[in-house]
Amino acid sequence: MNFAQSLRHAWEHNHSLVCVGLDPEPARFPAALRASPAAVFEFCREIVDATADLVCAFKPQIAHFAALGAEDALQRLIAHIHASHPRVPVVLDAKRGDIGSTAKNYAIEAFDRYQADAVTVNPYLGRDSVQPFLDRADKGVIILCRTSNPGARDLQDLVVRDNHGTERRLYQHVAESVAREWNANGNCALVVGATYPAEIADVRRRVGDLPLLVPGVGAQGGDVAAVVDSGKTSDGAGLMISSSRAILYASNGDDFADAARAATLALRDGINLHR
Amino acid sequence: MNFAQSLRHAWEHNHSLVCVGLDPEPARFPAALRASPAAVFEFCREIVDATADLVCAFKPQIAHFAALGAEDALQRLIAHIHASHPRVPVVLDAKRGDIGSTAKNYAIEAFDRYQADAVTVNPYLGRDSVQPFLDRADKGVIILCRTSNPGARDLQDLVVRDNHGTERRLYQHVAESVAREWNANGNCALVVGATYPAEIADVRRRVGDLPLLVPGVGAQGGDVAAVVDSGKTSDGAGLMISSSRAILYASNGDDFADAARAATLALRDGINLHR
Repeated sequence: MNFAQSLRHAWEHNHSLVCVGLDPEPARFPAALRASPAAVFEFCREIVDATADLVCAFKPQIAHFAALGAEDALQRLIAHIHASHPRVPVVLDAKRGDIGSTAKNYAIEAFDRYQADAVTVNPYLGRDSVQPFLDRADKGVIILCRTSNPGARDLQDLVVRDNHGTERRLYQHVAESVAREWNANGNCALVVGATYPAEIADVRRRVGDLPLLVPGVGAQGGDVAAVVDSGKTSDGAGLMISSSRAILYASNGDDFADAARAATLALRDGINLHR
Repeated sequence: MNFAQSLRHAWEHNHSLVCVGLDPEPARFPAALRASPAAVFEFCREIVDATADLVCAFKPQIAHFAALGAEDALQRLIAHIHASHPRVPVVLDAKRGDIGSTAKNYAIEAFDRYQADAVTVNPYLGRDSVQPFLDRADKGVIILCRTSNPGARDLQDLVVRDNHGTERRLYQHVAESVAREWNANGNCALVVGATYPAEIADVRRRVGDLPLLVPGVGAQGGDVAAVVDSGKTSDGAGLMISSSRAILYASNGDDFADAARAATLALRDGINLHR
């Protein structure tokens, strides 16, 4: 199955639009686990095993591993997900963006070294910078569009005029470029932050049924009902609604995996009320 | 010394605006070296030792290491540069960009784990995404502005209108935002590709003496005279002119380090004719 098929399958089979973000922060692990040399892997593995039947995707965030020098843990974790939960796709959240041979190497990093099913990328360098990812037709390419942070306004909300004299905001230009031009292999998706439901609705109008990865519910304060109402497709899917800290650190005791499952279940069911 | 001071010192002491990009591609290494388990480190170390007195900076490109799972080689390489060539700053070319705790972790990756003196970052997510880098006043933050690839046109050249009704291209908006707002700690620089000298001149007019990292001479075809004429500051500096493949792979024989030195010397002297 390619990424789009895996995602659709997980949406349906797990009846879930929840994407669990795997952002390990050892200082927030339960004390008992923190002492283990393999703590990063063990923590994430327990979260994964406790939630895999409730999610449409897992999204490890690579900076959290890289800052710790824990590339091996990331590699083991993704291999574990593929082996134990083969129907749940893995999105590597890396937000890569570069040109030429470097872009090719980033595609190798995400898809061959880590065996991710999809990766997040940054569009600032233009289509040719994303092409080595787009060319991997079986893999998902999730392009930053309108992010969930206050600074998203600095560039993404600027009004731009294209060669045809059409005016729209930069993130709207990105959304339409991806939907109309970059998605020739049918493997694109967009990142749109949960904190701006009006922008989610605007992007949805512009891109048809393209999947949207929506971070920012939970710790960042995005409203679940507004996100689902604004972003769902006509079949009540089309979204990967991502939560990290609110699930990973629902408890800092030995019951962290059970607490993560309860938080994931609550989020899934809360989302499903609005589909 | 902070990054700006190290860079100025290297410009003057080595009488050089050359930045050697370290983009290891094992298939292009000399056959004798390829067999070594530490080939990536050894190749880069020989290049570094052969050119350190001729450059203003070294720029390892992290994707080339990450695709190979060679983070250890990158770490050893930067440690070697600091130990053996302490006056040459290291720019980690990573083009990172993310928000909140993730941005903080990318800053930790670049500055603490790898001990880089500066890092390249992507501005698409706005100022708050770059802030954890900017806050490290002793470190350089080199922000993508106008890149050297054809696809740079897709977003960077769009005409944007800001809140005051001012119209300019997106890369010009980035240049002015960085020079006027993001550079409060005096630690910013910009990436402007060598293949577009008119854009280098335009950026130089907008940003005063801000250092510019200029990739794209050599293999990508940028013209040295045009780059220097367009980008130099009044004291004949202000530029890190980066070349990777034309230096690293000047020879694929056992003389690769000598050939790299000769190529670096030729580029340095060619640049200096126009300062």
